[in-house]
Amino acid sequence: MAQFLNLLTGEEAWEVFTSHFKPVVLTERVPVVDAQDRVLAEPAVAPHELPTFVRSTVDGYAVWAADTHGASGGMPAYLDVVAEAPMGQRVLFRLSPGQAALVHTGGMVPDGADAVVMIEQTHRAGAPMFGGKSLQPGFEAHAIEVYKPVASGDNCIFQGEDVREGEVVLEAGYTLRPQDIGGLLAVGITEVVVARQPRVGIVSQGDEVVPPDQEPGPGQVRDVNSYTLAGFVRKAGGVPLNYPIAPDTEDGLDAVIGAAFAESDMVVITAGSSVSYRDLTAGAIHRLGSPGVLVHGVAIRPGKPTILALCAGKPVFGLPGNPVSCINIFKVFAIPTIRMMLGARPPRQHIIRARLARNIPAGSGRADFVRVRLEERDGELWAVPVFGKSNLIFTLIRSEGTVEVALNSNGIPAGDVVSVVMDS
Amino acid sequence: MAQFLNLLTGEEAWEVFTSHFKPVVLTERVPVVDAQDRVLAEPAVAPHELPTFVRSTVDGYAVWAADTHGASGGMPAYLDVVAEAPMGQRVLFRLSPGQAALVHTGGMVPDGADAVVMIEQTHRAGAPMFGGKSLQPGFEAHAIEVYKPVASGDNCIFQGEDVREGEVVLEAGYTLRPQDIGGLLAVGITEVVVARQPRVGIVSQGDEVVPPDQEPGPGQVRDVNSYTLAGFVRKAGGVPLNYPIAPDTEDGLDAVIGAAFAESDMVVITAGSSVSYRDLTAGAIHRLGSPGVLVHGVAIRPGKPTILALCAGKPVFGLPGNPVSCINIFKVFAIPTIRMMLGARPPRQHIIRARLARNIPAGSGRADFVRVRLEERDGELWAVPVFGKSNLIFTLIRSEGTVEVALNSNGIPAGDVVSVVMDS
Repeated sequence: MAQFLNLLTGEEAWEVFTSHFKPVVLTERVPVVDAQDRVLAEPAVAPHELPTFVRSTVDGYAVWAADTHGASGGMPAYLDVVAEAPMGQRVLFRLSPGQAALVHTGGMVPDGADAVVMIEQTHRAGAPMFGGKSLQPGFEAHAIEVYKPVASGDNCIFQGEDVREGEVVLEAGYTLRPQDIGGLLAVGITEVVVARQPRVGIVSQGDEVVPPDQEPGPGQVRDVNSYTLAGFVRKAGGVPLNYPIAPDTEDGLDAVIGAAFAESDMVVITAGSSVSYRDLTAGAIHRLGSPGVLVHGVAIRPGKPTILALCAGKPVFGLPGNPVSCINIFKVFAIPTIRMMLGARPPRQHIIRARLARNIPAGSGRADFVRVRLEERDGELWAVPVFGKSNLIFTLIRSEGTVEVALNSNGIPAGDVVSVVMDS
Repeated sequence: MAQFLNLLTGEEAWEVFTSHFKPVVLTERVPVVDAQDRVLAEPAVAPHELPTFVRSTVDGYAVWAADTHGASGGMPAYLDVVAEAPMGQRVLFRLSPGQAALVHTGGMVPDGADAVVMIEQTHRAGAPMFGGKSLQPGFEAHAIEVYKPVASGDNCIFQGEDVREGEVVLEAGYTLRPQDIGGLLAVGITEVVVARQPRVGIVSQGDEVVPPDQEPGPGQVRDVNSYTLAGFVRKAGGVPLNYPIAPDTEDGLDAVIGAAFAESDMVVITAGSSVSYRDLTAGAIHRLGSPGVLVHGVAIRPGKPTILALCAGKPVFGLPGNPVSCINIFKVFAIPTIRMMLGARPPRQHIIRARLARNIPAGSGRADFVRVRLEERDGELWAVPVFGKSNLIFTLIRSEGTVEVALNSNGIPAGDVVSVVMDS
């Protein structure tokens, strides 16, 4: 275990990194209809109340509630229906006691009325009984029976009941969902100030790595990490920029990483994971600017050979080249960094509680992240560890989430209920 | 309750609809790098095994495992290191017993070797002890001490250990995540056959509805549903097509819905939700083709005034105009329909168990979908119902998930643990 003694834990490494990294959220103004999944950089404030007029929530009759007092099936209240409230227009008439007006769901409740009786609790009853005359050309006044009393306010939404003018409807740091787009439009907000999406430069390094469309020769492997990380960057709210594969030489590495650093807000390098190549990566990162490498190696498995650096204000991460470790470390450090740059509040993780199907052995001085798939057996959910040597890419594909075994734990026995952090 | 007696339950309505709707999944071939979130229409089959050569999982020395038998700190095994396996190239030499070769993580293990000793368990020990000569120009042969025995296969991944040639690595119906993109590329799959994304025509109907960039006059409201539904369509894997707002007239409605129907694979109409407008919508849908309207009204709250139809093979849904009901019904019926058209296996829902903070009253003959937000109190998660009249749009925004109260239940008392289906 000696090789882990000097490593920082994941928490310590994050602490060191964030004690140096204090990003300023850059902003831009975008149309609300294009703002799904973007992060608000300023609170959204309602320019007017909602609704802007008293609306009916049902099909029925707008009434003076007092007129229905004591109404029942055996002893209905009688009212004269004198108009129909038109949809999408100002209602120009005013109801007097004893009068009612037909209203549709979502329609404007006329002045004078203070409640709406559902149409199902009424019955049409011939000629007007109180001498009520039609208030609209073409509308035939008639009586109705009302079988159930309504209280003032029943089946109405009042002005400002949904949102008040000047109310903060969504806070800065909030990530917009489809229904939020609708809500913002509803109160008349058609543009919002959001965080600019950080550009994340992605570099795969290694003499053995070839582009995926190239047939690998003996000893060569296809570049897996660049495209996987690009997908995770997009999901996290950034814009991925892919760069050519960097060779394991100082000059070659400097050229590719330098270009990525110049054009991006953040750089991730999936380095050759061997000791010698790690030193090469660390050197290249160091030349980008100060303070340079802050953390080199973390007590996380898989993912020990990790570099966290800050160069001239930009985060630069050296991730293990092994895809399983690479993605684990990307989720632990790089995604939270992208969300910091967006000023985003942390999302609610998708965690499923399940019973562990096999023992997970002790973590031996590291926090272990074990990939699992879920299986339902007799109505109960089981988390089945997908073990495999750390280079087996398909352990990532045959699994759907991760169980973390804490540092210095004694492992987790089969049958225990564990929290599975699901892939988003 | 009389008005619900003749309504189908959600399950019955879905049964009726799917007994008529048997979609054929249309397919297209796309580059894997563009296939994130797409649904595989054909299984992905590995054209070759992975890895294609024996790889080391550590930095260390490739050895004959038998040479390390019994090695310990006090009694090390001695080996002659005669070469370094280059990265990205075929290893041309072959090790004999007593010989070792330096290998890097991910590098090719030379022929002859059947295990790798981690570099941390060795020590360099001067001149070769068994007369081992360098097998490479420029490489200086030397001895090492090995402090721990390895078994055959230790720290190696063998050919085909990750994926076998011809193996189905991902099944049809599978939705591709970022790591799947990497996995497909790793085995040399650069194109996949995926389901074509259904075009979903979206029509908002109502004389009171105006486009969101227009200032609503008295009695008018902004179109909320079109843009919210477009977002949900995209998340479900479809392509939203937005149409102009349709008026509450037969001709006007026919014109807009007809255009949407001609250009889309599926149409959703957020209809005026009042009885009279519902009839108008049902009529317009009926004129699109047979069998026409299959379900009119469901025992779901919010969302009773729902139309499920199939016209000339295309699904056409009439959703309530009220945004809360509209989105509820869209999730219950339209998203599963889009996923059917994609041939997609159902995704794992994001469900969080939480303690109910307030009583939810009985559902009264309907399945009730109650919006909730989650709050942590003293380390425990509580689901707080966001009650509100059904037209209050911001109940959707102030909440993050839904609790379903089953048909004919007696409601749910505060303190019970409930399943919250989180908004995805």
